[in-house]
Amino acid sequence: MAQVQRMSRLMVKTLRDDPADAETLNHKLLVRAGYVRRTAAGIWTWLPLGKKVYENVARVVREEMDAIGGQEVLLPALLPKEPYEASGRYEEYGDLLFRLKDRKGSDYLLGPTHEEIFTQVVKDQCSSYKDLPVILYQIQTKYRDEARPRAGVLRGREFQMKDAYSFDTSDEGLAEAYALHRGAYQRIFERLGLDYRIVSAVSGAMGGSQSEEFLAPAPAGEDTFVDCPACDYAANTEAVTFALKPASTEGHPAVEELDTPDTPTIETLAEHLGVPASATLKNLLVKVDGEIVAVGVPGDREVDLGKLGEHLAPAEVELVTAEDFEGRADLVRGYVGPQGLDKVRYIADPRVAPGTSWITGANKPDRHARNVVCGRDFEVDDYLDVVVVEAGDPCPACGAGLKLDRAIEIGHIFQLGRKYADTFQLDVLGQNGKPVRVTMGSYGIGVSRAVAALVEQTADEHGLCWSKEVAPADVHVVAAGKAVQTELALDVAGQLGAAGVRVLVDDRAGVSPGVKFTDAELIGVPQILVAGRRSAEGVLELKDRRTGEREELSVAEAIARLSA
Amino acid sequence: MAQVQRMSRLMVKTLRDDPADAETLNHKLLVRAGYVRRTAAGIWTWLPLGKKVYENVARVVREEMDAIGGQEVLLPALLPKEPYEASGRYEEYGDLLFRLKDRKGSDYLLGPTHEEIFTQVVKDQCSSYKDLPVILYQIQTKYRDEARPRAGVLRGREFQMKDAYSFDTSDEGLAEAYALHRGAYQRIFERLGLDYRIVSAVSGAMGGSQSEEFLAPAPAGEDTFVDCPACDYAANTEAVTFALKPASTEGHPAVEELDTPDTPTIETLAEHLGVPASATLKNLLVKVDGEIVAVGVPGDREVDLGKLGEHLAPAEVELVTAEDFEGRADLVRGYVGPQGLDKVRYIADPRVAPGTSWITGANKPDRHARNVVCGRDFEVDDYLDVVVVEAGDPCPACGAGLKLDRAIEIGHIFQLGRKYADTFQLDVLGQNGKPVRVTMGSYGIGVSRAVAALVEQTADEHGLCWSKEVAPADVHVVAAGKAVQTELALDVAGQLGAAGVRVLVDDRAGVSPGVKFTDAELIGVPQILVAGRRSAEGVLELKDRRTGEREELSVAEAIARLSA
Repeated sequence: MAQVQRMSRLMVKTLRDDPADAETLNHKLLVRAGYVRRTAAGIWTWLPLGKKVYENVARVVREEMDAIGGQEVLLPALLPKEPYEASGRYEEYGDLLFRLKDRKGSDYLLGPTHEEIFTQVVKDQCSSYKDLPVILYQIQTKYRDEARPRAGVLRGREFQMKDAYSFDTSDEGLAEAYALHRGAYQRIFERLGLDYRIVSAVSGAMGGSQSEEFLAPAPAGEDTFVDCPACDYAANTEAVTFALKPASTEGHPAVEELDTPDTPTIETLAEHLGVPASATLKNLLVKVDGEIVAVGVPGDREVDLGKLGEHLAPAEVELVTAEDFEGRADLVRGYVGPQGLDKVRYIADPRVAPGTSWITGANKPDRHARNVVCGRDFEVDDYLDVVVVEAGDPCPACGAGLKLDRAIEIGHIFQLGRKYADTFQLDVLGQNGKPVRVTMGSYGIGVSRAVAALVEQTADEHGLCWSKEVAPADVHVVAAGKAVQTELALDVAGQLGAAGVRVLVDDRAGVSPGVKFTDAELIGVPQILVAGRRSAEGVLELKDRRTGEREELSVAEAIARLSA
Repeated sequence: MAQVQRMSRLMVKTLRDDPADAETLNHKLLVRAGYVRRTAAGIWTWLPLGKKVYENVARVVREEMDAIGGQEVLLPALLPKEPYEASGRYEEYGDLLFRLKDRKGSDYLLGPTHEEIFTQVVKDQCSSYKDLPVILYQIQTKYRDEARPRAGVLRGREFQMKDAYSFDTSDEGLAEAYALHRGAYQRIFERLGLDYRIVSAVSGAMGGSQSEEFLAPAPAGEDTFVDCPACDYAANTEAVTFALKPASTEGHPAVEELDTPDTPTIETLAEHLGVPASATLKNLLVKVDGEIVAVGVPGDREVDLGKLGEHLAPAEVELVTAEDFEGRADLVRGYVGPQGLDKVRYIADPRVAPGTSWITGANKPDRHARNVVCGRDFEVDDYLDVVVVEAGDPCPACGAGLKLDRAIEIGHIFQLGRKYADTFQLDVLGQNGKPVRVTMGSYGIGVSRAVAALVEQTADEHGLCWSKEVAPADVHVVAAGKAVQTELALDVAGQLGAAGVRVLVDDRAGVSPGVKFTDAELIGVPQILVAGRRSAEGVLELKDRRTGEREELSVAEAIARLSA
């Protein structure tokens, strides 16, 4: 028999007004409907209704992880420093990591993710190729000391994640584990009722391991992604590539120097010459591991320094300062052009293709040059996708203009490869008797974040609006208030519960029908069954929370319909 | 269909030898059988088999908490300092508390228990007597920085607890919530298969709130309790009382002073006079909030300073030092007797009853007195049970000699009263329209500790030995090794799984039958079904893990028996 929850006994306090500090739907509605309560910045309490929704999401995740052979474990959240020092992440995480000492002064951290510890577990438990492949997962509390925890349970400092890790002896095995997770994630998000896109997370140009993100489009999302309206291409903006299309370097006029006083910026230059910014070539100087490098992009585009940094990692990228120009007669600040940069590495966006012609700096104060042709007057050392992607940029797959959308990252699957296995020397004995280095994948779903994403995508002006699989109950029975109505409501609730239906029944005394109806809409159970006006005749009204459709039903009809 | 777990795919590595540092059964066996792995001192990873057992215990706890109307919530483990400062526990916990700072320098702690936060939640969510009573619970990770984390998962620094809190407007309501929890705890521990005793945790002499502990007798236990072999009395040693039995003060010989050179201790005195230590009266001097107080107990008994401290709390008890005797001619060190202590408060054990006669100090150097009669020669200001309880002490209920036993505290129920409600001014509007201060109970079960207690109580020389309710599987099917045996084992396992039986099947290739049998005993699933010698005939051997009884069965008989 499923549980019948009586509102008269349930700890749920609904609010008419949004919390003062709430900016996002999930924060406003989960608090107003009594699902969660803020304990500290980015640290939340799950109240009874919220705990049910959270557990429903966790159950779906667990079922699908078990279905692909995942083995559930539970690792600690309080972790010793050493494994994270070995991987380098104890420092890399910077301020994101909660660090603490125990009574003896030993260093610990609160786990932000558990690659290191899982690697150690497998090193300890698996010694032969026969022990692999293995997929391990946990649904566990994670910690990240976000600089600006906000957006309700979307980005907490303490939050719940399902993290899984696969261990294989071959790249093919890893690819298979990756495909299994990809399929499981699709089933999970479909069952939860989330609208999602799978996007490439790492630029193909960089090669290397495969990585995809599961994004739930929502205005409150903190991620931007591109979406092609013409084909099925979608990607993290950082993963978008632009095809290099070389043209002939012949037939261009000769380079011509121009007198362009006081035009150290693209804006001043374009205005002075009366040309669009896109006709000019912008050359940004940066330092890569201390060495000055120039980055060329069309004058109307911005360089994405984060993307540049990822391309060049582990080298460090910094902006140049006035001191860097000292003693460098070849670098004329504000008037740099690639045609005079013999001693400087030149990186360019693929838009600066061979055969394109530009207005750019003449490497002399207050002077620019026109008809500067790539491949004739200068060479590009490395082509990298480093411009900030904009709406309308061509789709790498079909060429149509891309859309830019905001989304919530709800899942991430990643072929880690041997990074952690190398750190911890995770080998198993191979079939040929020799040690084989293990290859790993890591796969995450934000469980508490999925709840937030569901709210952002499905709530309407009346409140929450859950899918059947995650709703805290299947039916919300409302007793309008009179004795006969309460009696009917409790009777129907009891019968539904006996039939295995999860019921929330509003049997509160001294609460007006209007307040009860408003609360039912706010709480968002998919079906609302009202014992109202025609209760004496045994007639109830069934309302679909999402569509608003209403229908009158007898008790028998209601039981039959809802327990179907 | 229940899950069929194949050992060939399960991450479980059994060990023949105990871990070097293991002192207790649960530590040795849970590690050897591949249930848990140590991540750091007192910090454990639950491996696949361990996670199943842990979840089974949690499920039983959850079902019984739901049955008494408990509402499940989930509070954070990372908590702001302020509520714990308000209650005084931020300091009181001392080194037991893990403390840390976030990136902004604000103080946080890892929750050791959540009274403060639950009080705040209820203050926020409940405003009227109509919102109460309420029972809230969570199954959650707790943190205590134990000085000597040891004994496996029995006393971890990170561990799992079910903590519940009741909120009522009246003492009667609290008593009812307490009784509900007491019943639920009895059902939980019975279902888990734990042998337990319910013992009084606070001395009746002190009055006040009721508190009981659920103790699981086990040699590895860190608690000592008394148990009456003749009646059902059981108590924490600190809660044992001794009845005061006054006798006549008439008919005793007069006090007589004795010359007892160099006898400042009970041992030297008893030897000098040739009397048993029990004939002498020991007078311990302590300082209570700075004032000197004497505590009288029979010479053969020890004063339990912890117990004395609890009786006199919040006053602070310290031992006296040499300086405390300066200027106190009435206090002759080593020769104190109550008959001369007019200016000193005299506390005595009930064994020092009116009418008892003693040899004690004469309040002069090297002098003692005999025939010093309580009620004739000195008066007792307060009777308190302060002696260390010993085996053979009389049962307060029936007078029989008590037994002393070691046990593991697996549960604790406690009528907190209004302590936290006072701290946080937790009031609700009463029926008469006036605010009512709320009264609370707190109720804990160590979930990970219950797993350890089960091992300590039920394991045998072959390994773990789970009860059906908590076992990681119902049946452990062992394929002895040949193809026909493996085929039969997998066939039977499949059929059992289809019939709803949870099956672990040892289908490992290249592992000897002997190793498989030893592993099955070590892993401790209640029923072991072997596809061995007579597999070709379709005959299996069923072995009861606990009793060792064996029986040959056909496939059909085995399915019928095990799915019954």
